[in-house]
Amino acid sequence: MSELRKDPIIGRWVVIATERKFRPSDFSVPVEVQTEAFCPFCPGNEDKTPPEIFAIRPGSSSPNTQGWEVRVVPNKFPALRIEGDLNRRGMGMYDMMNGIGAHEVIIETPEHKNANGGNVDIKDYSLKTMVNIIETYQIRCIDLKKDTRFRYILVFKNYGKEAGASLSHPHSQLIATPVVPKRVKEELMGSKWYYEYKERCVWCDIINQEIDSGKRIVHQNESFIVIAPFASRSPFELSILPLRHSPDFDVITPKEKELLAEIMLVIFKKLSKGLNNPSYNFMLHTAPARYPRPGYWQTIEKDYHWHIEIMPRLVKQGGFEWGTGFYINPTPPEEAAEFLKSLNI
Amino acid sequence: MSELRKDPIIGRWVVIATERKFRPSDFSVPVEVQTEAFCPFCPGNEDKTPPEIFAIRPGSSSPNTQGWEVRVVPNKFPALRIEGDLNRRGMGMYDMMNGIGAHEVIIETPEHKNANGGNVDIKDYSLKTMVNIIETYQIRCIDLKKDTRFRYILVFKNYGKEAGASLSHPHSQLIATPVVPKRVKEELMGSKWYYEYKERCVWCDIINQEIDSGKRIVHQNESFIVIAPFASRSPFELSILPLRHSPDFDVITPKEKELLAEIMLVIFKKLSKGLNNPSYNFMLHTAPARYPRPGYWQTIEKDYHWHIEIMPRLVKQGGFEWGTGFYINPTPPEEAAEFLKSLNI
Repeated sequence: MSELRKDPIIGRWVVIATERKFRPSDFSVPVEVQTEAFCPFCPGNEDKTPPEIFAIRPGSSSPNTQGWEVRVVPNKFPALRIEGDLNRRGMGMYDMMNGIGAHEVIIETPEHKNANGGNVDIKDYSLKTMVNIIETYQIRCIDLKKDTRFRYILVFKNYGKEAGASLSHPHSQLIATPVVPKRVKEELMGSKWYYEYKERCVWCDIINQEIDSGKRIVHQNESFIVIAPFASRSPFELSILPLRHSPDFDVITPKEKELLAEIMLVIFKKLSKGLNNPSYNFMLHTAPARYPRPGYWQTIEKDYHWHIEIMPRLVKQGGFEWGTGFYINPTPPEEAAEFLKSLNI
Repeated sequence: MSELRKDPIIGRWVVIATERKFRPSDFSVPVEVQTEAFCPFCPGNEDKTPPEIFAIRPGSSSPNTQGWEVRVVPNKFPALRIEGDLNRRGMGMYDMMNGIGAHEVIIETPEHKNANGGNVDIKDYSLKTMVNIIETYQIRCIDLKKDTRFRYILVFKNYGKEAGASLSHPHSQLIATPVVPKRVKEELMGSKWYYEYKERCVWCDIINQEIDSGKRIVHQNESFIVIAPFASRSPFELSILPLRHSPDFDVITPKEKELLAEIMLVIFKKLSKGLNNPSYNFMLHTAPARYPRPGYWQTIEKDYHWHIEIMPRLVKQGGFEWGTGFYINPTPPEEAAEFLKSLNI
């Protein structure tokens, strides 16, 4: 059983995978992404993944057979396991609990290679495929929130070697955790403090200032805006923000799903064309499960605003970034926005 | 002039390098470490770096000529510049200031290649070389603290491509910043809260529990202990802690410098032998400059404890880590410690 352990000084939880994949000897050779000869995510290989949790199957095909458009399966090497109790406990001055959670893989499309022999990705999708994927995120988030052990559900994607991807068939992931992760808690606290001071949502204020200035907007439609954030951590970092104030991704409407899909296609086409198909991560930040709780995030409905963070992985993080949480970004967000805005796709 | 910009939600400062090295077109090809034909840090090339700030020269050689053992020069491509005023200011809801600071390179030794044709590193150093380097860190920290614009001085090292190094001649770096960086502030706050509750230093308590349990100790001498932290973020993360409570690295005694040098040689020999010469970062965390200030860290003399964090870069960070600040570590620290402890060097 994996363990969740809490840093006694700064309160950061980490997952220690005691059924580890990596023993010391595994590090004696550099770890590289496998260019897999066999793809467990391709149609026809449904029996090579754990049994599916959910799939969009427009025909009447049976689970774990071909005929799906999006397919969700448990991660074969999960960081956290679904079975068991949390058993929060101490060990001297340290805090720990069992590594309970969910770790799912969203196989985004049956297609793996595009016409040029490259890997398919968001840039190649039809609007319908992208809407399907967003709908799948929503369905899984709503379902996992029913499990009272989980406090947070994070949807994310690692694309390309530099972003930590290990399989090239297009997929995203989802992890449900029994604690609100540190980085999310910081956002929640920051939003709450701002609300206490201003009685306004800080994210809504950012949207207003960005629209007024116009300098960091990459794209906008009826429901969403994409900006290069004022204090971007790394070159071409982007945020997709819904114009309608809402703390929760999972109450997104059908019309909004279509408009989010549209804007994601635009953004990933631009990133791919302008930056030569870069590795990237994206993370969907939404409100935690089961709020408000007494004393915690009482005003979350008003102060928090869900969004997607996109981080192209163009520069490596060194000791300065690790040691300080203080990033050096060699590309001003104003230039990143201007460059991406002006690209024809 | 670079700018320091503050994230309006979580308060993280980033450096936006407006005299940027990277334009969008620079990202169209993957960035690789150059295997430099010409090394600006090798003896004889002293005129290829900016003029030196400090050097250990046992003979009577002149500055910017050969004959040095350790040499400190300004970074040729600094993230922050030494000249100018901070000019803290707002821009609508955003906070910013000029990118003022110091960015220095500590060239650790004149040697570049070892007998096998590999790059020299800490594992190859004599005790005297390592003591010289530690002394240089101390001298530069004491000197930079005199500049009242700087609130923090971070010594760090990036070794190897995966750690963000771009030159292979052995060197470490130092950055002085006009704000206390987020990650350090978190440690300071955590230490303070613990002290308020227990009236003891959290780091001293960790040392006591680790000595009592023995399970995560890699090495120990008269003045220092090396542990694999209970909540390690990544495989083989290590902390070097002084046994004597002290918030400040720069009051380290001559005897302690020798014992720190000794333990660093042991640790880096073990890491190199056991993990096949891995890329790594290390960061020296010490108290900020000019404390205590009213309302800030009043008890810092008692609650904070300087230390060195070592992070071998064996696994890539993906979207989950970026999105949550929640790390997945596949190697339990108890196993990492046992493995390194048992290695003969």
